[in-house]
Amino acid sequence: MSDPLRLTGVIPPVCTPFTPDGELDTGSLLRLVDHLMGAGVDGLFVLGSSSEAAFLTDRARRAVTEAVVAHVGGALPVLAGAIDMTTPRVLDHARAAVAAGADAIVATAPFYTRTHPAEIERHYRLIAEAAGVPVVAYDLPTSVGTKLPTDVVLRLAADGVLAGLKDSSGDEGALREVVRGRAPGFSVLTGSELLVDTAMLIGADGAVPGLGNVDPAGYVRVHRACVAGDWAAARAEQERLAALFAIVGVGSPARMGRGAAGIGAFKAALRLRGVIDHATVAEPQTPLTDEETALIAGHLTAAGLL
Amino acid sequence: MSDPLRLTGVIPPVCTPFTPDGELDTGSLLRLVDHLMGAGVDGLFVLGSSSEAAFLTDRARRAVTEAVVAHVGGALPVLAGAIDMTTPRVLDHARAAVAAGADAIVATAPFYTRTHPAEIERHYRLIAEAAGVPVVAYDLPTSVGTKLPTDVVLRLAADGVLAGLKDSSGDEGALREVVRGRAPGFSVLTGSELLVDTAMLIGADGAVPGLGNVDPAGYVRVHRACVAGDWAAARAEQERLAALFAIVGVGSPARMGRGAAGIGAFKAALRLRGVIDHATVAEPQTPLTDEETALIAGHLTAAGLL
Amino acid sequence: MSDPLRLTGVIPPVCTPFTPDGELDTGSLLRLVDHLMGAGVDGLFVLGSSSEAAFLTDRARRAVTEAVVAHVGGALPVLAGAIDMTTPRVLDHARAAVAAGADAIVATAPFYTRTHPAEIERHYRLIAEAAGVPVVAYDLPTSVGTKLPTDVVLRLAADGVLAGLKDSSGDEGALREVVRGRAPGFSVLTGSELLVDTAMLIGADGAVPGLGNVDPAGYVRVHRACVAGDWAAARAEQERLAALFAIVGVGSPARMGRGAAGIGAFKAALRLRGVIDHATVAEPQTPLTDEETALIAGHLTAAGLL
Amino acid sequence: MSDPLRLTGVIPPVCTPFTPDGELDTGSLLRLVDHLMGAGVDGLFVLGSSSEAAFLTDRARRAVTEAVVAHVGGALPVLAGAIDMTTPRVLDHARAAVAAGADAIVATAPFYTRTHPAEIERHYRLIAEAAGVPVVAYDLPTSVGTKLPTDVVLRLAADGVLAGLKDSSGDEGALREVVRGRAPGFSVLTGSELLVDTAMLIGADGAVPGLGNVDPAGYVRVHRACVAGDWAAARAEQERLAALFAIVGVGSPARMGRGAAGIGAFKAALRLRGVIDHATVAEPQTPLTDEETALIAGHLTAAGLL
Repeated sequence: MSDPLRLTGVIPPVCTPFTPDGELDTGSLLRLVDHLMGAGVDGLFVLGSSSEAAFLTDRARRAVTEAVVAHVGGALPVLAGAIDMTTPRVLDHARAAVAAGADAIVATAPFYTRTHPAEIERHYRLIAEAAGVPVVAYDLPTSVGTKLPTDVVLRLAADGVLAGLKDSSGDEGALREVVRGRAPGFSVLTGSELLVDTAMLIGADGAVPGLGNVDPAGYVRVHRACVAGDWAAARAEQERLAALFAIVGVGSPARMGRGAAGIGAFKAALRLRGVIDHATVAEPQTPLTDEETALIAGHLTAAGLL
Repeated sequence: MSDPLRLTGVIPPVCTPFTPDGELDTGSLLRLVDHLMGAGVDGLFVLGSSSEAAFLTDRARRAVTEAVVAHVGGALPVLAGAIDMTTPRVLDHARAAVAAGADAIVATAPFYTRTHPAEIERHYRLIAEAAGVPVVAYDLPTSVGTKLPTDVVLRLAADGVLAGLKDSSGDEGALREVVRGRAPGFSVLTGSELLVDTAMLIGADGAVPGLGNVDPAGYVRVHRACVAGDWAAARAEQERLAALFAIVGVGSPARMGRGAAGIGAFKAALRLRGVIDHATVAEPQTPLTDEETALIAGHLTAAGLL
Repeated sequence: MSDPLRLTGVIPPVCTPFTPDGELDTGSLLRLVDHLMGAGVDGLFVLGSSSEAAFLTDRARRAVTEAVVAHVGGALPVLAGAIDMTTPRVLDHARAAVAAGADAIVATAPFYTRTHPAEIERHYRLIAEAAGVPVVAYDLPTSVGTKLPTDVVLRLAADGVLAGLKDSSGDEGALREVVRGRAPGFSVLTGSELLVDTAMLIGADGAVPGLGNVDPAGYVRVHRACVAGDWAAARAEQERLAALFAIVGVGSPARMGRGAAGIGAFKAALRLRGVIDHATVAEPQTPLTDEETALIAGHLTAAGLL
Repeated sequence: MSDPLRLTGVIPPVCTPFTPDGELDTGSLLRLVDHLMGAGVDGLFVLGSSSEAAFLTDRARRAVTEAVVAHVGGALPVLAGAIDMTTPRVLDHARAAVAAGADAIVATAPFYTRTHPAEIERHYRLIAEAAGVPVVAYDLPTSVGTKLPTDVVLRLAADGVLAGLKDSSGDEGALREVVRGRAPGFSVLTGSELLVDTAMLIGADGAVPGLGNVDPAGYVRVHRACVAGDWAAARAEQERLAALFAIVGVGSPARMGRGAAGIGAFKAALRLRGVIDHATVAEPQTPLTDEETALIAGHLTAAGLL
């Protein structure tokens, strides 16, 4: 793990655009990458939750990584999720991602099965051994049912097994404990859309916000203000983004899960901003209605993005 | 769904034996199939949770289904799990299982992502449309985080989308509601090791007990006694099996998850009984110690199985 | 705990009728007691969850127990809930209930605070020491957040600390384990409305069904059929009651919690049947609308109760 | 709610000292109050979770409030928890607390029962109507099983029903949404020990940290640094307190719940610092061992508090 990969700054989880019939829309994907790079982001995270990795076939996963890696051409680090239930399956995804050119692998704790912290630790050790690139732990209890134990994360950091943590647990107290106890060089990134300034105050290195697809420049401004120690400016910009984040609540809870409401909102906003061609979400997610899309347009206008 | 497939009786979720280095041990797998068929089971369920489906690579999944289907030669129905996070990924597994000869597909609700009941319903409709074989819903909230809503199951049964339900939810009240409301021909199978007699009293058609790997003849006796209306005999045999089920609690909670303790116990018992060659469990699960294995041997002896 | 109190048969958790302004309606309460006793129930459980114990002031709790004990006059055992967060507060309620004449105390695990199984065990030992009457454990994870551990229950049963268990956990597998392992004389009662026949098949002694307020005679018939070994008759009657139990789903989830929907339905049915004067529920629960009450009347008619 | 009560700054939830036989130790309680006031805190919160309110009898609750109110003599606002399951019972506690001289009431959402957001809202409206003093909502999902919905809190704030929020939900994103949307004069206090600086950056008014019993001066320093905009100083002091907070993890999870470990640690530290006479915790909580107490002494020494 002596890799010089720098995991700092804004590293958006890149949405995966589809054609209306659900195929990967590579043209839109690459325009989205340009949109993000143009805003000054520091890295790209493909095949994360906001990328609908859970919905992508192996074929589609590989196509995404290959396309983005080739397009970026080394200008920025490209992290790839290796999202699956257990070590043997994660290893297959990790190998595929590395073969496709990913600079680092992002993996959650095992899910579907009920594991012990010792098994979570072994999971990451086996992945790191085989991956050949830096491994970032992805803490996402709402998806996997387990919070990564702080002592496990810190031990894996100290042993050089993990290069960093993407924390989407919502537990900022635990985030602080990881920052306080981490080994030098271990990156801590928040996955929160709402708490980038506070995570940076705590000592985090950056953010992986899904909303960063829609307004990457906003998150870059938050991050730069924090690095400059201008907390008032960071807070003001973060609050603007917090208002914009209301788009994920537009999709009706009577018709769709919170997953579809969030992803659908990001994609609708990207289409409205002219970045991608279609707001199609993967099956079996419920799409937004035209009325809901119009509400999202209203939010974008209010945020100065349309 | 006019398929004449009968989903009744004892249909064990077949364990997946490994060599000590974690490769599929096909010889042991086929001896296990013989052991189950010799005891009079009514079907086989490969790639279920007790089969460590969550840990099997796509390669291993296909090899298991092909080997079992070829070995059984149509003598019994072979159901195959298509265990993955969302519709597009489940469809890939379903196609592979059908290509390998499976007679029916078993699929859970989406997981990792947060879905709405309408999305769960759409998930099953899309799978059934594409599968070409009967589809059985697998209700397993401890793994997927969602209980299948009774009204969704009943609507999918009435519409002929689902051929049956494997209920491992532990919610016997909901099981009764499904039995009371189901369309004719819709099979209801309990996944409980402890409640086969009561599920049959409620009106279920059979059972898919993980412990059925270890003592298939016992579950066949419970089922036959229930069909014959001899509830006292069914209860007595079920209680013997309930005592045996204590093996899943042998593995220390200080060292392993409840998944590993259960699978490890089944595999240790199968090895002790001479059915399979190794008790190896998939990574990253903690193996049982020799002392724990000795305790399992004691339980087998007490149950008259050693 | 050598008390000869027999905890078997049907022991309904007695609803607590209110006047329209929320005061205890003692006249209705005693008519409800007559209604239950007339149907042949084997005991009464006041101040349980279906009694809205969580909503009753200490004053109202004492008034209920005193009124029911006096009215019953020893003809049946009267169990009283001592529902509160921790040992010192439960002890105050237990003393008050015993002073008011209760024959046994029913207590949950501690709640609001996060306890260890050893603390749950100590909780029951301290209550039993002080109560002076038999103590029944009330397993109600949806309310208290903890499932009573089977080993703790069995140890307290073996030591004579607990006289019985009211199991509303919905975990029939664990119920079977308690029945299999219990000390002689330890009563096991199911709190399920839907699974009295299966609980009796497992070996339970009786039931504490909230719906027993509405149709006590039905539950008495289920219990008697089970005792007589007529499982087909028991199942048929239980299924009739399961259909009636749909009344708890009438209250709209868009307007009220599942607590209010259940209690409101029981009270509406009791009023429609002429047993109590008002269907008033305690604050802050949302009352049923007239339309919802009409739907409940339809269910009662279908069940032959109106 | 035009009450001029200022809910800002550090308002510790005051521990409730006991004698070795579990009676209220008023002498220690008042020395603790002096210790807190001497450190410059801005208010006192009695009968909160860290006060073991869940364990205190009504008698003890009243004695605590009366003693503290009399001792403080109006020098600081005294908030009192009215912790119980539902509106009628909370109202009894609220009336008792106001009679005993409390300046404000703190109440959670209903618990034990399963409520709807509309019922939570009604709960607070009824309490505020009857209380006669400002009412603060206490958001504590780990105890009550429900997160207070942001829209409910904001509506109650806008309508003047609630004077403030004590947020112990751990959800800093939701905290930000409340701060962004609140009516003028509505106080937002964090209950976190670890995140006072970040809550203040977000715009909160103060903190109610349990650890503030042990090191009130530390929290006062954090708060003052935040008010002064010296975020680096605030963070440094907050990190010192975060290190000290490790005392709540000293009590062995093999023997005690996390509640007892936390309260026991605060009380052990207070005794070691000479503030209170005994570290006794309420029943049925497991006490710390001498070895564990020695570890806590080590932490105090490291923090410069011994």
